[in-house]
Amino acid sequence: MTVRVGVIGTGIMGADHVRTLTTSVAGVRVSAISDLDEQRAQAVAVEVPGARVLSDPLALVHDAGVDAVLVASADSTHEELVLACLEAGKPVLCEKPLAPTSDGALRIVETEVRGGRRLVSVGFMRRYDPGYVDVKAGLRDKVIGAPLMLHCVHRNGFSAPGTATSGLITGSAVHEFDVVRWLLEEEITRVTVHRPRSSSLVVGGTSDPLFVLVETTSGLLADVEVFVNAQYGYEVRCELVGEYGTLLLDEPEQVRRRSSRSRSSRVSLDWRDRFAEAYRRELQDWVSGVAAAEQRGASAWDGYAATVAATAGVAALESAGPVPVDLEKRPDLYESR
Amino acid sequence: MTVRVGVIGTGIMGADHVRTLTTSVAGVRVSAISDLDEQRAQAVAVEVPGARVLSDPLALVHDAGVDAVLVASADSTHEELVLACLEAGKPVLCEKPLAPTSDGALRIVETEVRGGRRLVSVGFMRRYDPGYVDVKAGLRDKVIGAPLMLHCVHRNGFSAPGTATSGLITGSAVHEFDVVRWLLEEEITRVTVHRPRSSSLVVGGTSDPLFVLVETTSGLLADVEVFVNAQYGYEVRCELVGEYGTLLLDEPEQVRRRSSRSRSSRVSLDWRDRFAEAYRRELQDWVSGVAAAEQRGASAWDGYAATVAATAGVAALESAGPVPVDLEKRPDLYESR
Amino acid sequence: MTVRVGVIGTGIMGADHVRTLTTSVAGVRVSAISDLDEQRAQAVAVEVPGARVLSDPLALVHDAGVDAVLVASADSTHEELVLACLEAGKPVLCEKPLAPTSDGALRIVETEVRGGRRLVSVGFMRRYDPGYVDVKAGLRDKVIGAPLMLHCVHRNGFSAPGTATSGLITGSAVHEFDVVRWLLEEEITRVTVHRPRSSSLVVGGTSDPLFVLVETTSGLLADVEVFVNAQYGYEVRCELVGEYGTLLLDEPEQVRRRSSRSRSSRVSLDWRDRFAEAYRRELQDWVSGVAAAEQRGASAWDGYAATVAATAGVAALESAGPVPVDLEKRPDLYESR
Amino acid sequence: MTVRVGVIGTGIMGADHVRTLTTSVAGVRVSAISDLDEQRAQAVAVEVPGARVLSDPLALVHDAGVDAVLVASADSTHEELVLACLEAGKPVLCEKPLAPTSDGALRIVETEVRGGRRLVSVGFMRRYDPGYVDVKAGLRDKVIGAPLMLHCVHRNGFSAPGTATSGLITGSAVHEFDVVRWLLEEEITRVTVHRPRSSSLVVGGTSDPLFVLVETTSGLLADVEVFVNAQYGYEVRCELVGEYGTLLLDEPEQVRRRSSRSRSSRVSLDWRDRFAEAYRRELQDWVSGVAAAEQRGASAWDGYAATVAATAGVAALESAGPVPVDLEKRPDLYESR
Repeated sequence: MTVRVGVIGTGIMGADHVRTLTTSVAGVRVSAISDLDEQRAQAVAVEVPGARVLSDPLALVHDAGVDAVLVASADSTHEELVLACLEAGKPVLCEKPLAPTSDGALRIVETEVRGGRRLVSVGFMRRYDPGYVDVKAGLRDKVIGAPLMLHCVHRNGFSAPGTATSGLITGSAVHEFDVVRWLLEEEITRVTVHRPRSSSLVVGGTSDPLFVLVETTSGLLADVEVFVNAQYGYEVRCELVGEYGTLLLDEPEQVRRRSSRSRSSRVSLDWRDRFAEAYRRELQDWVSGVAAAEQRGASAWDGYAATVAATAGVAALESAGPVPVDLEKRPDLYESR
Repeated sequence: MTVRVGVIGTGIMGADHVRTLTTSVAGVRVSAISDLDEQRAQAVAVEVPGARVLSDPLALVHDAGVDAVLVASADSTHEELVLACLEAGKPVLCEKPLAPTSDGALRIVETEVRGGRRLVSVGFMRRYDPGYVDVKAGLRDKVIGAPLMLHCVHRNGFSAPGTATSGLITGSAVHEFDVVRWLLEEEITRVTVHRPRSSSLVVGGTSDPLFVLVETTSGLLADVEVFVNAQYGYEVRCELVGEYGTLLLDEPEQVRRRSSRSRSSRVSLDWRDRFAEAYRRELQDWVSGVAAAEQRGASAWDGYAATVAATAGVAALESAGPVPVDLEKRPDLYESR
Repeated sequence: MTVRVGVIGTGIMGADHVRTLTTSVAGVRVSAISDLDEQRAQAVAVEVPGARVLSDPLALVHDAGVDAVLVASADSTHEELVLACLEAGKPVLCEKPLAPTSDGALRIVETEVRGGRRLVSVGFMRRYDPGYVDVKAGLRDKVIGAPLMLHCVHRNGFSAPGTATSGLITGSAVHEFDVVRWLLEEEITRVTVHRPRSSSLVVGGTSDPLFVLVETTSGLLADVEVFVNAQYGYEVRCELVGEYGTLLLDEPEQVRRRSSRSRSSRVSLDWRDRFAEAYRRELQDWVSGVAAAEQRGASAWDGYAATVAATAGVAALESAGPVPVDLEKRPDLYESR
Repeated sequence: MTVRVGVIGTGIMGADHVRTLTTSVAGVRVSAISDLDEQRAQAVAVEVPGARVLSDPLALVHDAGVDAVLVASADSTHEELVLACLEAGKPVLCEKPLAPTSDGALRIVETEVRGGRRLVSVGFMRRYDPGYVDVKAGLRDKVIGAPLMLHCVHRNGFSAPGTATSGLITGSAVHEFDVVRWLLEEEITRVTVHRPRSSSLVVGGTSDPLFVLVETTSGLLADVEVFVNAQYGYEVRCELVGEYGTLLLDEPEQVRRRSSRSRSSRVSLDWRDRFAEAYRRELQDWVSGVAAAEQRGASAWDGYAATVAATAGVAALESAGPVPVDLEKRPDLYESR
């Protein structure tokens, strides 16, 4: 069976996904493409034999030639489009955030629960990064004992112009929120945000870097440096500290150059460079899951929980102390497999 | 266009390739499978919707439902099968060696030249390993200047029972022979083999490890440790030494564990573990090339040159000094793109 | 000139110092040794030609054959002994803490200021560790721009029996307090302490690990994991994050072993193992400074400031939020050279 | 007891040794200094309280105020000076080579044997490098089983003007010859030299790099890249390959910088930078040995054996194949302790 995927949104991320689906994923065909900017959609579609361009994204969702939908359009459109997919009974992979507000994300969860079937996946691609997968495997194999702390670093070379301080939470730290939940299989209970001295290279009053503390049900403490104008490149690291040892995830590094009094290796340019393989595996697993009628990857519940934590994080920006993360009761539909 | 691939040989490597093609490669379908052991072929085919089992591999080559052929059967069958593909005018990806003898490999080259079109690819997967690709890119970007030496290490945990000393050359060092040619874009001129003290764990009179010296047209010297009973795991490394610096390819390492007075990272189990991503990229590139009517990866000429070098290497086992590598004149068909 | 040193305290640290002074430091002789346990002092002195054992440490301070004093006795004795050295006008190297209380440390500062000459050095040996020295040099050379954050890890394999939670601050985190001040040449303004989930291997109600936040005059935020029952070994790391890049100090590692599917390197056993070279350089610099009539290493002011920060840290253990670090005005005597 | 050392030769190395002895070594005093260039000797002596300048090096050897002699003068003077020390019955530490010719080195051995007491140490400082010491300890602890191969890299940034090809053997590879003998506790039996393509940056017909093969009594094969115009810096590495695993000695690296899309660490400038700690430990051990009336470090026999191997290496430059290393029978005096 070849899964026919409709892609909504052909910005940087969406266009990348189309390319990955058509050149590196088995069992899939991109059959329809939609974008507010129809010319942009055309430019992408022309490279994909058999792909039609539809101007109305909702028409794409309901199109008979579309088995599953990939949502990579603007954040503000996610809720409506995902709800439409649920209505149409079609699997959907939605880039994060599932919805910009906790309420919106909750509406998706409730709608999916009413439907009785998990159809929604959220694009938290780190769950597919070989390094993160190794850390989780190490934790499961009990090589470090019970986890006690998690130290995280999340750096971008440069932020998009006009990025507000809250964007460091909702756009960057939210990945670590999902990592904490996925790695530890616990919920986040509180978020605190510190504002270290800001880089003088950051303009417009944005606080950058931030230092975020996250507490979980078991009392584990995770700390996250978020620095989106780190200049030197993109870097994501973490160290999970357990009772008997630690697991340290560093940047992959395979080739080291000796030159000019220095041994050096390359730092990633951006998240697409760093997580290319994770994206490919995510898309492959999603497609294989669609073919097997099985939801895979982060669920709507995961998307909701990350949004609630991010919302608490934004509130914590203006709070002297910790802000609680209050989740609804988790529906049975999301009992982890 | 979906490329319909017929796979001949369903041993460890062939079965792996079927799995990779069906679960991780875009634009392809495995339509036919053949193996001397028909039950083994059946066991593989049952996992692949739409794949037929053909008992006669030559029938598979000529089957109307097969656009391209992957040869992963016993070494002794390669020449006949590849020649059949050429006769049928079908692209073929042949696992190394292209043929066990230089004469056999040359017959394939000559037949392909007569046909006037490159159809044969040889499975030297390291050309697709991200690390090796980085080293080649670094060399091209002139970050280390002209290359002068290449130090290589090729270790397996354990050899197959009954491996002869010559098998260290034809099964292992041959990968480095191809790496030398591909990386430097030069031919090999001489091969010398040294026999260091052998491991006491090796039985049956096999010399293991070996130390192989390779010289190229420009005078570059490559040295290769081949050690197929290294016990601790699988490892492939190299350092390319240039006039201004070096490029060192080490094992990928992303997660380091602290425990019991030690910082450690995992060593690969075997070549499939180490080169899984290289195999996927190789198969994807081959399939995309077939769809684009373009031969990609190592060519029949590359397969021939590696076999001639390996033959010289085997002769060098019994020679006190260097053994020359004498190639025929390279046909125009193989001018590098 | 040979400096004649009197050593007070021959526990693990003091005995080590005697050994280092007599076997690895130029221009020095240990001429007198004192310990509450006179037999222990004898056992150490017997290895040192020409060293006398004095039962009264104050007699040692005033002894005509002693040019300078090394204090490695119990913390509670430090203040009295250092004050005696000031009275005698003799240089003294005091193991940390300079005094167990801020008031005690301040009395030393005031006494020294009245004397008008810096005679007191405090044993913060990390200032002599080649790695920390490199980090400081990198910061000075402006290779990372202005510093914004400092991430620290401080782990011991096992704590001494009966270690209270406050001991994690006064015995371990205090080293990072000094590192922050020395590296950044700024004072600490506030300390916050978090209690992550404790290791189940820790008994007696001690909270271990702790996570300590330190703020400085310029707004820099330093975070410190202190974990004194980390089981796997001793490890100290830090990463200094600047506007243009970072400097990461990791454990020294020179030899890596391949064996049993693993690449590994050794983790230090304890602080003496890790900082042996730092101790040697500290003692050499102190001795050379004594010969040159120049105080070197951490000053009485540094010892005072570290004690005030540690006192705030202990208070922060019982506080929900940050505890201020209030220092007296720094006397002119301590203008950094 | 304070050992009074006389230093002959105050070039770069000798002046360094004087500085190390006076500022970082316990139990020693530099009492006399000699150099062909008396002004140079004066310039060094002026920094050393109590050191006299003697114009005649033989007078220094016999001076009553000199307990032991450090020879760091021109290679051609070594034999005469070491023989004079033996005549005077004084311990001597001679920079390598012990003598420029095998015959000269043998004369020293024979003279020392006649005297019946080991007084001569040779400055093979790598025996004191913490990394090499770790490799030897790992071998002794049998963590890799019996050794089979040793891969070595020896690179200098730039050679001295006028360095002949033979200088790569006698000045650089000779260190690896000593390492092989010391690490494995075996003698070298044969040396082969290959001349890879030379760097175009090397002038005057010198072959650089060289690739040297060394065989030992047990059949172990060591290979050494010697590249004295590697441009990028100084680097020494080795990997010892055993039956069960390997030990890889890499450059020490403690601080890594992130900046400009790169993670980097510093490469050493030259051998003094790289081996500063080894030199200090060597001098300390020599001085302590003198005080204990015990010869330590490489012996006259080791110096002789290295010279014979280097002589074979130079002959191998002009030979197509291996050149044997023929040693005299080892006198009982040099039974290893």
